[in-house]
Amino acid sequence: MQVRTPNDQKIRMEGFPAEVTVIDVGPRDGLQSEPGWIPTEEKIALIDGLVDAGIRQLEATSFVSPRAVPQMRDAAEVIAGVDRSKGAVLTALVPNARGAERAAAAGIDAMVVFLSASESHNRKNVNRSVAQSLDGFGEVCGVAGEAGIPVYGAIATSFGCPFEGSVPVSRIVDIAKAYRDLGITRLTLGDTTGMATPPIVKATCRALRRELPETEVTLHFHNTRGVGLACVYAGLEEGVTRYEASIGGLGGCPFAPGATGNICTEDLVYLLDECGVRSGVDLARLVEVSRRLERVVGRTLPGQVMKAGPRLSLYPVDSVATACG
Amino acid sequence: MQVRTPNDQKIRMEGFPAEVTVIDVGPRDGLQSEPGWIPTEEKIALIDGLVDAGIRQLEATSFVSPRAVPQMRDAAEVIAGVDRSKGAVLTALVPNARGAERAAAAGIDAMVVFLSASESHNRKNVNRSVAQSLDGFGEVCGVAGEAGIPVYGAIATSFGCPFEGSVPVSRIVDIAKAYRDLGITRLTLGDTTGMATPPIVKATCRALRRELPETEVTLHFHNTRGVGLACVYAGLEEGVTRYEASIGGLGGCPFAPGATGNICTEDLVYLLDECGVRSGVDLARLVEVSRRLERVVGRTLPGQVMKAGPRLSLYPVDSVATACG
Repeated sequence: MQVRTPNDQKIRMEGFPAEVTVIDVGPRDGLQSEPGWIPTEEKIALIDGLVDAGIRQLEATSFVSPRAVPQMRDAAEVIAGVDRSKGAVLTALVPNARGAERAAAAGIDAMVVFLSASESHNRKNVNRSVAQSLDGFGEVCGVAGEAGIPVYGAIATSFGCPFEGSVPVSRIVDIAKAYRDLGITRLTLGDTTGMATPPIVKATCRALRRELPETEVTLHFHNTRGVGLACVYAGLEEGVTRYEASIGGLGGCPFAPGATGNICTEDLVYLLDECGVRSGVDLARLVEVSRRLERVVGRTLPGQVMKAGPRLSLYPVDSVATACG
Repeated sequence: MQVRTPNDQKIRMEGFPAEVTVIDVGPRDGLQSEPGWIPTEEKIALIDGLVDAGIRQLEATSFVSPRAVPQMRDAAEVIAGVDRSKGAVLTALVPNARGAERAAAAGIDAMVVFLSASESHNRKNVNRSVAQSLDGFGEVCGVAGEAGIPVYGAIATSFGCPFEGSVPVSRIVDIAKAYRDLGITRLTLGDTTGMATPPIVKATCRALRRELPETEVTLHFHNTRGVGLACVYAGLEEGVTRYEASIGGLGGCPFAPGATGNICTEDLVYLLDECGVRSGVDLARLVEVSRRLERVVGRTLPGQVMKAGPRLSLYPVDSVATACG
């Protein structure tokens, strides 16, 4: 199999940013829902592999209750074991002040606090109202500020809630303002159960740009209904330059067994490469990381490029019996 | 599970056409590569189900050599058995004059002739040069003209060839001109092995619109590298109003075992619904057809919406143990 440089036709997409940041959330959002224990050294190898492939920011782990999320109980060991020499930003989810203290002690680069746009999802997820969650973030910001660590925010169910349905754009703007009032202006909009659509993405990005120009938006889509990369396309048209994805498409959806979760990092990088958008990530090395991960979790992952290879994977004419009619 | 109307937020995508035609190619392009025999009555039930769900054009079968493609050997019986009362357009692939005679006798609504943009793929697929293929189409047009049946054209490997790599846009324009000279102005651009990308799609659509305004383009994408619906998005921005897809995402890629083939009709219809583009197709009924097909072929199909349900499939709060962090 012969592979040429991606996008050798050199056609650039008008209106897309020249460069974006790809953030891999597989080590946390992906691995968290794995039923079997993933050894600490495999988690470290996964993060090191992603950084070697050119990923510059990762959601590395979470400092939540080990009883609630046993897969993340080795959070501190994972952070201690990772090669930090390349300067990639390691973030961790932090639910409260106690988690923030653990995260600071572990030497994380940034903490991520999170709530859900809908009250019912927030209560189900963290057993609090949205207002109570925001109150708690003040304490986290206090701990982080003393440690000199930045805090980022996330809004789950930003594009729809599996219990309540559509989420008004004004609700996202209001929560983004509450985050800004806490000093948090780097904000992830999470598409927790794959309800984002291109027009909703566009409307949300425009409202935030208009009302909170100082807030930097990161988009986090799921491919649960097949339109994850179409939503990225919509985000690129809106000028958004930060996207979260999970290596191999690791992670599922608790509402629909068999449905996929996060968009796949390699497929995202492939789309960016082919649209002439720089990400600094090496697709071939990323695919190697994904294939190794497949062996670690012991099942086929939903990523497509890891199965088909990049676009210009060429074949000898006699390599197949028929060539598709 | 409670389901509301799609896109209840009623946000329309600027620049997209108001209405498109969704053409299902599953009964031919999908079923053709099934290793096990699909009974004639199941093929008929599949087509009838798709028409009942609102599909107005289908690639129903092919009149090729039964030795070369045994799965299509019941082409005439399938066409004879389908309910024609709803007026859906049934097309069939026709490789030569003999196939055209069989297709005309079977009462097909339109014949589709096909070649590949690249010489090596055309030779592999039909054992002829592109010029020889075009010569043969003249005979097909003669048979079809006498029977009063329209002929459509298709270009496989329009966006890249697995043997030769990139296909210049000028090559597609030249072949489209040769088709036009034969009187064929309804033209499908086939993404045979999933090498289409948004910028290549845009460049190709623009060149054809500029040089052959009388030719009506149909786009046929594969999701082999995960970007099939992103390519549809690019086509919609270029004003293309005809898209081919396969129910359930049926059909694979002979080059990459485990990789997917055609984009999935339900996922396409979901994207269109959510972008406010009318297709006249009922998503819920389409999903029923897809689930039945999954039982017929005896394996999980790659479609996403058939697993997750439409966007506003709402769940009771106590239906899941955790709600995704």
